[in-house]
Amino acid sequence: MVARTLLDRSALTIVRSIGTNRTDTERMTPVTELVDKTSEFVREHVIPIEREIVVGGRVMDDALRLDLQKKAKEAGVFGPLSAPEYGGLGLDTRAQAQVLEAAGASLIGPLAVNAWAPDDGNIHLLAHVADAEQRERYLAPLASGEVRSAIAMTEPAPGAGSDPRMLRTVAEETDAGWIINGAKHFTTGAQGAAFVICVARTPDGPTMFLVDRDNPGLRVGRRMPTLDHSSAPGGHCEVEFADCEVPDSAVLGTVGHGLELAAVRLAPSRLTFCMNWLGLAVRAQQLTVDHVVRRTAFGAPIAEHGLAQGLIADSEIDIAAARGLIRTAATTIDTEGAVSAQARHETSIAKTFVSEAVWRVLDRAVQLHGGLGVCEDHLVARFLVEARAFRIYEGPSEVLRWSIARRALRGPR
Amino acid sequence: MVARTLLDRSALTIVRSIGTNRTDTERMTPVTELVDKTSEFVREHVIPIEREIVVGGRVMDDALRLDLQKKAKEAGVFGPLSAPEYGGLGLDTRAQAQVLEAAGASLIGPLAVNAWAPDDGNIHLLAHVADAEQRERYLAPLASGEVRSAIAMTEPAPGAGSDPRMLRTVAEETDAGWIINGAKHFTTGAQGAAFVICVARTPDGPTMFLVDRDNPGLRVGRRMPTLDHSSAPGGHCEVEFADCEVPDSAVLGTVGHGLELAAVRLAPSRLTFCMNWLGLAVRAQQLTVDHVVRRTAFGAPIAEHGLAQGLIADSEIDIAAARGLIRTAATTIDTEGAVSAQARHETSIAKTFVSEAVWRVLDRAVQLHGGLGVCEDHLVARFLVEARAFRIYEGPSEVLRWSIARRALRGPR
Amino acid sequence: MVARTLLDRSALTIVRSIGTNRTDTERMTPVTELVDKTSEFVREHVIPIEREIVVGGRVMDDALRLDLQKKAKEAGVFGPLSAPEYGGLGLDTRAQAQVLEAAGASLIGPLAVNAWAPDDGNIHLLAHVADAEQRERYLAPLASGEVRSAIAMTEPAPGAGSDPRMLRTVAEETDAGWIINGAKHFTTGAQGAAFVICVARTPDGPTMFLVDRDNPGLRVGRRMPTLDHSSAPGGHCEVEFADCEVPDSAVLGTVGHGLELAAVRLAPSRLTFCMNWLGLAVRAQQLTVDHVVRRTAFGAPIAEHGLAQGLIADSEIDIAAARGLIRTAATTIDTEGAVSAQARHETSIAKTFVSEAVWRVLDRAVQLHGGLGVCEDHLVARFLVEARAFRIYEGPSEVLRWSIARRALRGPR
Amino acid sequence: MVARTLLDRSALTIVRSIGTNRTDTERMTPVTELVDKTSEFVREHVIPIEREIVVGGRVMDDALRLDLQKKAKEAGVFGPLSAPEYGGLGLDTRAQAQVLEAAGASLIGPLAVNAWAPDDGNIHLLAHVADAEQRERYLAPLASGEVRSAIAMTEPAPGAGSDPRMLRTVAEETDAGWIINGAKHFTTGAQGAAFVICVARTPDGPTMFLVDRDNPGLRVGRRMPTLDHSSAPGGHCEVEFADCEVPDSAVLGTVGHGLELAAVRLAPSRLTFCMNWLGLAVRAQQLTVDHVVRRTAFGAPIAEHGLAQGLIADSEIDIAAARGLIRTAATTIDTEGAVSAQARHETSIAKTFVSEAVWRVLDRAVQLHGGLGVCEDHLVARFLVEARAFRIYEGPSEVLRWSIARRALRGPR
Repeated sequence: MVARTLLDRSALTIVRSIGTNRTDTERMTPVTELVDKTSEFVREHVIPIEREIVVGGRVMDDALRLDLQKKAKEAGVFGPLSAPEYGGLGLDTRAQAQVLEAAGASLIGPLAVNAWAPDDGNIHLLAHVADAEQRERYLAPLASGEVRSAIAMTEPAPGAGSDPRMLRTVAEETDAGWIINGAKHFTTGAQGAAFVICVARTPDGPTMFLVDRDNPGLRVGRRMPTLDHSSAPGGHCEVEFADCEVPDSAVLGTVGHGLELAAVRLAPSRLTFCMNWLGLAVRAQQLTVDHVVRRTAFGAPIAEHGLAQGLIADSEIDIAAARGLIRTAATTIDTEGAVSAQARHETSIAKTFVSEAVWRVLDRAVQLHGGLGVCEDHLVARFLVEARAFRIYEGPSEVLRWSIARRALRGPR
Repeated sequence: MVARTLLDRSALTIVRSIGTNRTDTERMTPVTELVDKTSEFVREHVIPIEREIVVGGRVMDDALRLDLQKKAKEAGVFGPLSAPEYGGLGLDTRAQAQVLEAAGASLIGPLAVNAWAPDDGNIHLLAHVADAEQRERYLAPLASGEVRSAIAMTEPAPGAGSDPRMLRTVAEETDAGWIINGAKHFTTGAQGAAFVICVARTPDGPTMFLVDRDNPGLRVGRRMPTLDHSSAPGGHCEVEFADCEVPDSAVLGTVGHGLELAAVRLAPSRLTFCMNWLGLAVRAQQLTVDHVVRRTAFGAPIAEHGLAQGLIADSEIDIAAARGLIRTAATTIDTEGAVSAQARHETSIAKTFVSEAVWRVLDRAVQLHGGLGVCEDHLVARFLVEARAFRIYEGPSEVLRWSIARRALRGPR
Repeated sequence: MVARTLLDRSALTIVRSIGTNRTDTERMTPVTELVDKTSEFVREHVIPIEREIVVGGRVMDDALRLDLQKKAKEAGVFGPLSAPEYGGLGLDTRAQAQVLEAAGASLIGPLAVNAWAPDDGNIHLLAHVADAEQRERYLAPLASGEVRSAIAMTEPAPGAGSDPRMLRTVAEETDAGWIINGAKHFTTGAQGAAFVICVARTPDGPTMFLVDRDNPGLRVGRRMPTLDHSSAPGGHCEVEFADCEVPDSAVLGTVGHGLELAAVRLAPSRLTFCMNWLGLAVRAQQLTVDHVVRRTAFGAPIAEHGLAQGLIADSEIDIAAARGLIRTAATTIDTEGAVSAQARHETSIAKTFVSEAVWRVLDRAVQLHGGLGVCEDHLVARFLVEARAFRIYEGPSEVLRWSIARRALRGPR
Repeated sequence: MVARTLLDRSALTIVRSIGTNRTDTERMTPVTELVDKTSEFVREHVIPIEREIVVGGRVMDDALRLDLQKKAKEAGVFGPLSAPEYGGLGLDTRAQAQVLEAAGASLIGPLAVNAWAPDDGNIHLLAHVADAEQRERYLAPLASGEVRSAIAMTEPAPGAGSDPRMLRTVAEETDAGWIINGAKHFTTGAQGAAFVICVARTPDGPTMFLVDRDNPGLRVGRRMPTLDHSSAPGGHCEVEFADCEVPDSAVLGTVGHGLELAAVRLAPSRLTFCMNWLGLAVRAQQLTVDHVVRRTAFGAPIAEHGLAQGLIADSEIDIAAARGLIRTAATTIDTEGAVSAQARHETSIAKTFVSEAVWRVLDRAVQLHGGLGVCEDHLVARFLVEARAFRIYEGPSEVLRWSIARRALRGPR
């Protein structure tokens, strides 16, 4: 049967950890090699400085980011989301799933290989919809890590939150181009971004505009005091567009099609988050296993107590199920396309389950660390807090469940 | 990249239902064709008689079974677990996953294609460990559906339940062969089975024996009044071995290696159950979707109420996650072998999650049917009750969690 | 009223079981005495015949019911829901909670003391809204156990299910009284009921009518094949009213106020179910504890395995929380009245939590019994199946959550 | 005692919030009056400064604490846990439950009325076991709020964590008294505490010692960087006892009975935490209700979306169940005593359920606030993080489940 042959050479790389626990029988293929190199890079260059960033209060600034990314390039692991022409690794989504899980072993690993939000999604978006000039001016430096970017979509009430149709930022057409006015918040990475993609309402519908950092109409306000402060260089910011003038060439894609572009960006972006956070869940499970086999209570290592074993097993199950959903959705993106109905359904399902499963795994990690688990001397405390927003951004679980249900309800019967 | 090519032709057949909702873009491959044929067979030949069996009290006897299996052969869908030399389809595990999910759309679908317990596991076991004569005498008629079989392992307290080391049935060596004595229960399919595989203790360790139906030392007792009574022809029976004499040729595999043989049987058997029951969960979800879009309450179809949508979405997620875990474990069985450590870990994880996810999906189906859901006029009521044992047999969730945790705890770190 | 006095002195009796595990320091008060007597009655007279009813297929007919109720009267435990003038015990709701938990230790215990549906709710309803003649004719024989009753409310689609406003059964006024036409189903206890309370639409709104068994327009159809078949004498039936003529004196309460009457009935009826089923959950937990301390696996009694302990503890917590919610709502009914907004809120909360907690406790009981748990040789298998409908009748969890949320959302802020 | 009288008339006051949503029909009794006064105090004096403490980074120092407590005294709400002879309100446990829920509406409310850890437990402990001199010297200023205290029990590995028998701090008897040596951590409130109760091992068993702040052998180290940093003045500290000499009069209770004393402290202390945190959960639910009725998405207020209603309802249920368990355990403490087996069982159950229910309520509050919920502009983000440790301190859920199960398993059957 055909399947047999295919399977023999295919998806064999069930990589469960930072590269150490592959079975001997797994053949070395290009992807597993890359996974191993990524794990090694994270172990050698990222984890050593992770602590000062995550629990030590050191700010992840661009100098540090650039240094890490330089090392990633030297290690040959930079750019899992970019095409080779932009210095990337040219991976399909399924290969990305394996590589990013390895990168995600550290909270700052994905950033180090240039696969962290919002640049991950912006790279994908620009690669698919930017014109040649925009690709050269915006995509090239972004994909290479030279600059960072932001996307300004979410607005304060009564503007657009989970519901993009509530958009209130307005772009008016002028002789010279467009004037944008409106307030945004939760604009990730805005401080220090070379450009901001702004979603604004036009008479023809929502439209995306590329706004340069030095545009005088762009005002990046305070970093919002969010629970996740380690993982996002540039913060989640308040941003204002005040009579912000941009030329016609700033329009990304077609006027009035901003929400379709958002959808182009969303499906892979959701999945990238899943891959990255799954890596962190795997790491937390490993830290927890290390802890419970060493720490003794009530006459035996914690690892020998049944209720602790139950938590360990539940996390193993959550991790395996999360991985399965990511791989399934990745395969569909590779074969059906990222904006196919099936891909959107499967990435919605994956995002919902993975964000909740990662939260449970991290919560169990904290619980099994006991008092140490709520102490920022130990990474798991910080991991949990950083992860909370993942169940909300890129579609809160409740909104995703709603859309999952609607698709199921209108399916062929 | 290599992966791209592979993926283009590979596991694309994400079949979500009884064959109706594949996207147009999916190419027809041998496996998807077989899935479609299986779905069609279930729709045309199995579902029409399902009701009388499942809720109507008609007994699934061998005449009916043989008739269904004859039709399955005619439809070209018989034997997804057997090799072509025994009239089977010669599928690898990953292809089985797709085909059995389609067969599982009816509670009696897997039986109709000869992929139901305990014969599924016994076919696998015999195919791997029986000698030539045993293969001809036992495997051939079993794989062809000519006869049914049973495996007598579980014993009443204080014998072997979840813990196989508590085995009390004894086989003593004699000049002529062996004499077996002991009591078993929950011996699935024993009534009417052509032979029973008996696990008994010998001085060299647990050993498996093939015992023919007409052996005067084999006494098949009452069918136990279990909650699942529709799906198992031959019931779950009490069985006694009373001075049961068998020749040396009755030994399956090697004396003293019965538990290893049980492990050979267990990993694929657990996964086969997962595939079959997942199919039933998908069916229940479809029945439920059909119900909620039609039935109105509080001014709108139930399908438009948020809390109902939440249940529908949760079941979609459970089904997708279950499917992912099954496919992952199936791939590992195909590449690493069914008794590899990785396969055992992944089938344990899959069995635990899938058995609980299927239960949740069926429970939500009942709940969304309201009063009708607890009325055996509607299949979902019976599906729920039939499924309860799945969280217990082939390893209760708690025992599986224990073993999952132990593997995670001793893993390489 | 006697009960009030009892309550003042009794609130401290935390009775956890069939009367055996009260602490020595608890003072004997009238209520605890009654609880003890009820437990003793259940142990001596109910549990001995429970098995043949619940798993043995013996039908609970009126002869058996009357015999049990006669013994309950002799034991002084009959009528916990009725006033002394009707031969009842005259308890307030809080005392009922303790007594019915004791009675509920057997699936047929509540029936034996005349506190089972639908008579429990009908007694309450008639006691509050029937006129003198109706009390004498209907309430008196019902409260004494002489007869059974039914209430015909739920209708087949597109009639009234969870949403009472969808009522389609119609009562037309005539010179002589009323003519009722319409179809009902899930009419509990209809077979053999002396009278049926029918809810029908009139021009002035839904209205309740008392319909005698021998009314030629009342046709009691088949018992529906529901999952709970042990606990309801008279079954859940299809009922038809076909040109069913009743006099004006058959109107219960006021024409057009049928839904208010349903509300009068509902709050205490929901809570009575909670009390009864909590008793069964406590019993299942005891059976489970007995099992796990005796049955050995993996080198130790199941009771010593951590994951089993976790299930036992979760059930203890569920039972305690359920009991707390019942007592709180009972206190509110006693002080604020059963139709007060607070009582309706609290009984909705109690019904939702208790029905789900009981289900979890029974499910864990099955799980901890292993294979025996899904075998009807053991009561827990049957308990689980019987309990499923409790999450649906008297308000499905989803409908109750909806109403709980609406009350919370419109509360004073 | 005053409290007893109060209780007899007060049990009916189901107070659901910061004093605003009592039903009109509830009679004014001394306890409800006190609850109302406490709510008013929290609204007027505590909530106005809560934000700067909880999200603004202002340190809760003793000056601020003393100012708040002065206002609490003026409002007549200071000292719900102390006897009148020490300036307290002399409440029994059941009355405390109502009052502390009101105080807990702010994260710093319990501290403001002197009912926050560790002083709450230390007041209880000293009131029960200190001798006359110790009461004057330690209890009196502690109960009046003049000073704060700490209890040094938990030790770094391999010392005592959840398992008190692993105690490694040692006290050696000398001619003059005792010399204590050992390291502690997570010593709540140590910075600025007037005295520390140290648990140390002696030849006769664990013993508690009162150690004054100015003892040169007491070294209070760094505040550990725990997730909860707003609510504990004095932090959770590392503490060292280095040749720390104390006189015989420093022994609390009897030498060798330190663990019994810990148990005296633990049952009420666990319950006090439950009361306080329940208050915060109620507050978070109110903040959430306020948010969802005002914020619109997808064409309607969030409050009208079914999935949001489901979360609101689940939190209502969790809050009601938590309250029921607290009241039940409080009643048992009042009638059976805090160290009775029943009280220990019920406080273990309450602590386990309430800590997890509070966590769920706060987590849903975050989720329903969307992006704002993970932003420390909104209190709910900080509430969630602060609450995480509650599932660990005073007995992690897993250890409590273990002890709950063991009690259930050895109960009378």
